[in-house]
Amino acid sequence: MKTVLGHADRAALLPRLGVNGWDYESDPTAITKTFRFSNFREAFAWMTQAAFWAEKMDHHPEWSNVYGEVTVRLTTHSAGGVTELDVDLAQRLDAI
Amino acid sequence: MKTVLGHADRAALLPRLGVNGWDYESDPTAITKTFRFSNFREAFAWMTQAAFWAEKMDHHPEWSNVYGEVTVRLTTHSAGGVTELDVDLAQRLDAI
Repeated sequence: MKTVLGHADRAALLPRLGVNGWDYESDPTAITKTFRFSNFREAFAWMTQAAFWAEKMDHHPEWSNVYGEVTVRLTTHSAGGVTELDVDLAQRLDAI
Repeated sequence: MKTVLGHADRAALLPRLGVNGWDYESDPTAITKTFRFSNFREAFAWMTQAAFWAEKMDHHPEWSNVYGEVTVRLTTHSAGGVTELDVDLAQRLDAI
């Protein structure tokens, strides 16, 4: 669960894991995605649903919001990189 | 309402306006403050209250959250700097 994912197939790995629109950062110890909404209210409503998932999974995003845009960064600090926990949360966020 | 505040007394101005712990960015077209909470749930509960104020005032923060920490950046884009709108929102956020 807490094993850092390999980076060999970076471009193909994430879609194969079932998450869309996520990409590794340049470092690549984290994955990021920007979610876009038509206004602040919709963006924050989405964040609220995401927050409940994060709390339930006890795995929390690093995220920022500017009006209708939410940029999410996922990493597993204790493992020093991207693990299945991040992929699981990414899938939940994609499904909201 | 939409007049950019002068920067002459930067250090003293914000406390005099009734906001605490806020500071100008180096540029100084925005003010920022980091709010700290004991966990994600408390941080996001605070963000939710802040979101309602922002929506009510139709003035929205640029903000980021990492676990129990929320960093808020306030600026008035239409004015190109800090205005009374930002100070009003800062006061609301301080009061939550």
